[in-house]
Amino acid sequence: MIDIDEWTITSAALKAQGGTANTRLKTVMDSLVRHLHEFAREVQLTEAEWAHGIDFLTRAGKITDDKRQEFILLSDVLGLSSLVTAQCNRRPTGCTEATVFGPFYVANAPKYDNGDDIANGASGEPCFVAGTIRGIDGEPIANAEIDVWQSDDEGNYDVQRPELAQAQGRGRLSSLEDGRYGFRSIVAVPYPIPHDGPVGQLLEKLGRHPWRPAHLHFMIRAPGYETLITHVFRSGGTYLDSDAVFGVRSSLIADWKRHEAGLAPDGTCMEEPFYTLDYDFVLNKAAKDYTLLPPSR
Amino acid sequence: MIDIDEWTITSAALKAQGGTANTRLKTVMDSLVRHLHEFAREVQLTEAEWAHGIDFLTRAGKITDDKRQEFILLSDVLGLSSLVTAQCNRRPTGCTEATVFGPFYVANAPKYDNGDDIANGASGEPCFVAGTIRGIDGEPIANAEIDVWQSDDEGNYDVQRPELAQAQGRGRLSSLEDGRYGFRSIVAVPYPIPHDGPVGQLLEKLGRHPWRPAHLHFMIRAPGYETLITHVFRSGGTYLDSDAVFGVRSSLIADWKRHEAGLAPDGTCMEEPFYTLDYDFVLNKAAKDYTLLPPSR
Repeated sequence: MIDIDEWTITSAALKAQGGTANTRLKTVMDSLVRHLHEFAREVQLTEAEWAHGIDFLTRAGKITDDKRQEFILLSDVLGLSSLVTAQCNRRPTGCTEATVFGPFYVANAPKYDNGDDIANGASGEPCFVAGTIRGIDGEPIANAEIDVWQSDDEGNYDVQRPELAQAQGRGRLSSLEDGRYGFRSIVAVPYPIPHDGPVGQLLEKLGRHPWRPAHLHFMIRAPGYETLITHVFRSGGTYLDSDAVFGVRSSLIADWKRHEAGLAPDGTCMEEPFYTLDYDFVLNKAAKDYTLLPPSR
Repeated sequence: MIDIDEWTITSAALKAQGGTANTRLKTVMDSLVRHLHEFAREVQLTEAEWAHGIDFLTRAGKITDDKRQEFILLSDVLGLSSLVTAQCNRRPTGCTEATVFGPFYVANAPKYDNGDDIANGASGEPCFVAGTIRGIDGEPIANAEIDVWQSDDEGNYDVQRPELAQAQGRGRLSSLEDGRYGFRSIVAVPYPIPHDGPVGQLLEKLGRHPWRPAHLHFMIRAPGYETLITHVFRSGGTYLDSDAVFGVRSSLIADWKRHEAGLAPDGTCMEEPFYTLDYDFVLNKAAKDYTLLPPSR
């Protein structure tokens, strides 16, 4: 391992990690080292560019905290999240498609009963969301844990508003005996991903916009079924064909129907126009671990 | 860009960044995206492994501050730093070889006169270092700025000791009219790179040790010459053939000569044994920018 040059470094680095008994770790790290080195040789990465890369990661680390996750954003805008989601969620036809997790999930969101208003004060036009959770064979799934999270009508999630003391636009529900679920919230709108940090600067330099089309996030977990992490996108909206994080799947696009003031699905007499969204989810039988642990912050 | 799958995501991501006018950025980012995606497909990266990667980067970001640089450590142990250094410093025979920069450089180190003791209180056996800075044609280089930095005899750099108020074991000198330089310091010893963070955990899981052979760091800058960033390694020491950061080059290995108590090269009467190191540096004529800016922290 003396007198390594730009070519022999790769075999030296692979040899150095040859001693681990963890064969999966070795497989992953060997591929990572080979591709990292091939990238650096292919573009003849300069020392100044290397330093810029270190600086980028350092700034991403600095801006990341329990409310902001710049590394997930980076993975999202580079298409890595979309790729991993796709290759890890090949499901039979008929199952609801998965899409990217995103950086705004918060574990242990407030629990609500079906019919409650999860907006909890977040601004936006009222919207009533309802549907059924079923298994691939059509069976209704009772007691599925439904995590839902979304932005307000300014495009901000609650975690992006430091002045907020309580969760807004996010919550957990359980499906009923017949698999039905339903809640009140607000209409989803397009929003830019946080672009005041290094990832935003990268997008700008690449000539890319930071916008995402309007959507609701869902994570649905039930014993015996694969956990489903997905969005429902609003049809007819902007950015559906240029989502900054490559998350749109046509099967996940649905209509938000507009209604004039009057009787809402939950019996409320609405004094303003409101929307309804009906969306059913179909889960695959579990073939892997029930719980996907989200990354720590 | 709707209905992307694990294969079409790569062309979608490349297309998205097709709009930038910065052709070099596009070249670098296109290669990065291709290799990142190929890596994830090749190993069939799972969502749990992806989450582990996000968590690793997040923890690396958290531990990085103005004294600790985990991202440089990561680049170093994966061999990327050694690769980039090698391909960016191809120099004519006779020039001093470059090696990795490492995470312990600090800009604006204290200025010293030739002959001063840069240890400044750091513990270790005394050592007198001297030599000449020359150009490739043999000409002595006057007023070259010489940055030197090293660990103490416990293997710690000053920035790793939070109780220290002043720089120790680092300083800046200028070469004399005849190109000579010289300073007093302490003997370099092997030390482990900081391994109480995510990079250390990775090394352990990979079955790798974190040790580096004994060395002194130098950065030498002079107008009209390429900046040289290198180490001088101590011959006969341990870890020369298994440096955790792949930095050793045989041309950079030199003898630290031991002397019994008596007259030192600077005329001091030493009451304890001491060492001398003589090392000459040869700089290449500048063909690129004079100043390499180190990454920010």
